[in-house]
Amino acid sequence: MPQLALIRHGQSEWNLQNRFTGWVDVDLTDEGVAQARRSGELLAKAGFKPQRAYVSVLKRAIRTLNFTLEGLDRLWIPVEKSWRLNERHYGALAGLDKDETRAKHGADQVKIWRRSFDTPPPPVAEDHEFHPANDDRYADVPRELLPAAESLKLTLDRVEPYWTSEILPHLKKGETIAVAAHGNSLRALVKLLFRVGDAEIMEVEIPTGNPLLIDLAEDGTTILGARYLDESRAQPLPPLP
Amino acid sequence: MPQLALIRHGQSEWNLQNRFTGWVDVDLTDEGVAQARRSGELLAKAGFKPQRAYVSVLKRAIRTLNFTLEGLDRLWIPVEKSWRLNERHYGALAGLDKDETRAKHGADQVKIWRRSFDTPPPPVAEDHEFHPANDDRYADVPRELLPAAESLKLTLDRVEPYWTSEILPHLKKGETIAVAAHGNSLRALVKLLFRVGDAEIMEVEIPTGNPLLIDLAEDGTTILGARYLDESRAQPLPPLP
Repeated sequence: MPQLALIRHGQSEWNLQNRFTGWVDVDLTDEGVAQARRSGELLAKAGFKPQRAYVSVLKRAIRTLNFTLEGLDRLWIPVEKSWRLNERHYGALAGLDKDETRAKHGADQVKIWRRSFDTPPPPVAEDHEFHPANDDRYADVPRELLPAAESLKLTLDRVEPYWTSEILPHLKKGETIAVAAHGNSLRALVKLLFRVGDAEIMEVEIPTGNPLLIDLAEDGTTILGARYLDESRAQPLPPLP
Repeated sequence: MPQLALIRHGQSEWNLQNRFTGWVDVDLTDEGVAQARRSGELLAKAGFKPQRAYVSVLKRAIRTLNFTLEGLDRLWIPVEKSWRLNERHYGALAGLDKDETRAKHGADQVKIWRRSFDTPPPPVAEDHEFHPANDDRYADVPRELLPAAESLKLTLDRVEPYWTSEILPHLKKGETIAVAAHGNSLRALVKLLFRVGDAEIMEVEIPTGNPLLIDLAEDGTTILGARYLDESRAQPLPPLP
């Protein structure tokens, strides 16, 4: 039966510094590396054998996947990278300290930007280094698809076509798949998989370094069960759809 | 103008133990990891910016590529893995100590197996763990293509179609490409690129941890220049074709 593991990258340098990150390509900390290795160990212990993996184009997720595949001794599987699995784009907030942002814009406004389903933060300027149009890695992405800021809804809107056209067909063929990505792109996948409502999805928090392993029926879409592999650090999961 | 970097993996555990390796999936040593990082540094210093990378399905090459891409800060480029870039399959010699093999079969015979262009070593048994038919990662490869032992000629025979159909078209589009692989699969690529004769190619030895950077004309096939990035450890290159 196919399985799907959702793996959130571990601590990054800007998590540690309490800064909004989004599409900025910051690296893992040593603790983040340890969490990535731990993900590999947990998945190996669970007997997880992915045949294919998907990852964003951000190094904190790619390195997390690489450490995980090393732990599984399956570095050889095909890996596809896509910007569509990137973290939510934090717009003009990217790089700002979260406390300073609260002091400047008010805690309520920051809470809306962080926790509303469909209110994007203010956009980053087109000529700013953090605008994706100024980053080589997005050179092949049509200009009109590149975000200057994203809500979770906008994140979901660009994750969903990739899920449907690239990942789901392989699950339907019975393949076991690993996805290494970010808090919000994984939240978008959980919303699609568990058919979670717009308000409810904001309450779902996927822990770092603790893979969510989903058992699927032969059809590749019916969820038979789902669990975090480190039970001691598990978060509540939405009810099965 | 397109560039092509050929990167040979660094020291593996069995290099260190003086054992024939081939398709056996042994890991890098710490020294091998350091060589891989050094490859990344040398390529970064040379301003190398690959848009795409190719690698075998063996971890010593994949990890070498990963360390190299980390050094280049380009983990985000697409990477395609193929068994066709694997090391030459050493058949029944895989796992054997080189000195013991000489004692058993005679130094002359071992020299023929190691240095002849078209004499493969004795085949590995079909039920042996080192036969690729018994390894998950080759499950999608047609059975009749899986080797039980390879000469350099047989290695070349399976590298060439991949080079022609997968790598070369991207060079012809003007892309800059990295290939991380093995002594003999890289030797096969050098034979194709420099049009080296069957006897002469056995004299070409690509050093580890010392990328060979090839400058190509706009057509993606005419070699304008080629150099090892660490000149102090360079080996002679064939004349430009």
